[in-house]
Amino acid sequence: MNDNAPIAASDGSVLRVHAGRPDAPIAVEVTRGGMVESVHRVIAAVVDASGKAVSTWGDVDRLVYGRSAIKPIQALPVLESGAAEAFKLDDAEVTLCCASHSGEPMHADRVVAWLDRLGLTAEDLECGPQIPIHEASAHAMIRSGAKPTRAHNNCSGKHSGMLTTAVHLGEPTKGYIGDDHPVQKRLKAVMAEMSGCDLSGVPTGYDGCGIPVYGVPLKGMATAMAQFADPAGQGAARQAAIKRIVASCAKHPLLIAGTDRFNSALLAETGTRCLLKSGAEGVFAGAATEKGLGICLKVDDGNGRAAQVAMGAILRHIGVLDADAQRRLANSLTTPVRNWAGRLVGVVRPSPELAF
Amino acid sequence: MNDNAPIAASDGSVLRVHAGRPDAPIAVEVTRGGMVESVHRVIAAVVDASGKAVSTWGDVDRLVYGRSAIKPIQALPVLESGAAEAFKLDDAEVTLCCASHSGEPMHADRVVAWLDRLGLTAEDLECGPQIPIHEASAHAMIRSGAKPTRAHNNCSGKHSGMLTTAVHLGEPTKGYIGDDHPVQKRLKAVMAEMSGCDLSGVPTGYDGCGIPVYGVPLKGMATAMAQFADPAGQGAARQAAIKRIVASCAKHPLLIAGTDRFNSALLAETGTRCLLKSGAEGVFAGAATEKGLGICLKVDDGNGRAAQVAMGAILRHIGVLDADAQRRLANSLTTPVRNWAGRLVGVVRPSPELAF
Repeated sequence: MNDNAPIAASDGSVLRVHAGRPDAPIAVEVTRGGMVESVHRVIAAVVDASGKAVSTWGDVDRLVYGRSAIKPIQALPVLESGAAEAFKLDDAEVTLCCASHSGEPMHADRVVAWLDRLGLTAEDLECGPQIPIHEASAHAMIRSGAKPTRAHNNCSGKHSGMLTTAVHLGEPTKGYIGDDHPVQKRLKAVMAEMSGCDLSGVPTGYDGCGIPVYGVPLKGMATAMAQFADPAGQGAARQAAIKRIVASCAKHPLLIAGTDRFNSALLAETGTRCLLKSGAEGVFAGAATEKGLGICLKVDDGNGRAAQVAMGAILRHIGVLDADAQRRLANSLTTPVRNWAGRLVGVVRPSPELAF
Repeated sequence: MNDNAPIAASDGSVLRVHAGRPDAPIAVEVTRGGMVESVHRVIAAVVDASGKAVSTWGDVDRLVYGRSAIKPIQALPVLESGAAEAFKLDDAEVTLCCASHSGEPMHADRVVAWLDRLGLTAEDLECGPQIPIHEASAHAMIRSGAKPTRAHNNCSGKHSGMLTTAVHLGEPTKGYIGDDHPVQKRLKAVMAEMSGCDLSGVPTGYDGCGIPVYGVPLKGMATAMAQFADPAGQGAARQAAIKRIVASCAKHPLLIAGTDRFNSALLAETGTRCLLKSGAEGVFAGAATEKGLGICLKVDDGNGRAAQVAMGAILRHIGVLDADAQRRLANSLTTPVRNWAGRLVGVVRPSPELAF
């Protein structure tokens, strides 16, 4: 496998790194009729658990906020701390720890029941309220006059996991999203360990759900994900946590995102062969367990339509999606663009040639 | 004025074309905490009515679909044909011909009343139905159980204008969005005349509302818009149409987009000094009437948040927005990024230096 090898795109054209520029980003193009209308640049790294690059596109040392794509990494302390065992978290709840869910009843109701076991309510979540991403759920809420709660926030499962750990370890639940709270310090330490990166002094910011985010080199983020694919170098507790997370997400693909979401369709297709998670601003991360590889990509401009198509192209490139899977996922790997009347007017696809 | 002159950005930093690369695109960056998280590349042209470039950024010969940014050009036949006079279109209706509206009652109700004067209904519009962009209007519709109609489609005013022309000229109303219908042939001819570009054989596609779109060089699109700023080279009927369109849109800024929309706020600020119109996939076009200049920009990746900020930067660059106007529009020129809890976590702003 090398970076200049052509990648078959679903329309028969090829996605390839520009011959003379092995560092060129992946291009995802949006066509309309006879012309490419818009184009996205994507940097990406596929690495093994030692951090060795197998394939890279663009500047993979660039600092990137992992956003929700690193939720599986952020779920580790819930399991390693013994909190999951103490509160008998089931596989659905472990999956919700890793989820950016659509706020459907299957997500929000489970979060509320779980918080109740902790002696807490949705008001203890410090993420803001969010109208469900799932349109029918949002419309039902609007029709009934109900207001979205914090349990409907797409990150409510991750936050419930943080609260579970805090309660289990006797830490204050109030202020758990603060930079100096033990919950957030643990998350930063876990990311440093998994990525092999020194995160002292890196740029920081705040996520959509209020927790701190850290700038991590894209390649480091892929290395962290590679530990999910090849955990041999990790301690026993972390290995067990990794195994549980991979198995749980494979069992509950609809809980990691939701109805009609690409991330859920992808996990339903790959099962335990992959752990895949999208994030805001065009980040997508994953582990290909049978290949022992970690993947992370970032769309320069932050667009999700391009992140999805680029992740599909990379999964094909590393041989995770066979011809049957590609056929079943065809509308996600090359996404149709339709107008208001439903007419097909273009597609989002990997570029047959890199223009950059 | 030259392309290498620094442009003061609202945060005191400067937007400048890279010294050694006068053809470099404008960069719009999205910050989060201490880091730029995402970045957009924008090509742009500011030209006079003869097509002479005053300022350019990037490859302005690139073919671009004008999308909804060229609606003022597409409104010309409604006036030039005598249809507007025959059916007594008022200034609000002329503005709706140019609008990508939010589907609020002030938009949809006016369209229905106008179609009634033609002996038509919303069902005669060949754009698909669209849930209002305006959240409160959409929620009211969902609560009442009503379904969005074609009158709520953001393009319903433009389509009503097309139908008005067809009825006036005795052309069939059915099929007016087809490539070979006289309505669409006229629109293509008008674009060729206004832009000075030969559009035979250019790539074509279909817009979100179903009408054909044509690939036009970005600079040609700016030249077409410059005719609105300096119509001296046009015939009498077109000059009158241009004058009416500029005056109408300045009078009804809320009708061209809607409540809390940047395009409306911008027009409310500039009045007849500008005619400005956003389009899908990151296109934004305008005319600075006092300067005699036309403007067109396209965000490579199609993102609207970048188009807005880039248009603001260009309007400052050419001296259309004075210090007071910049203060009033501050939150639109450098856009806050907030998380679900309402906390300010970043901004979308013109880049202080071009990284490309």
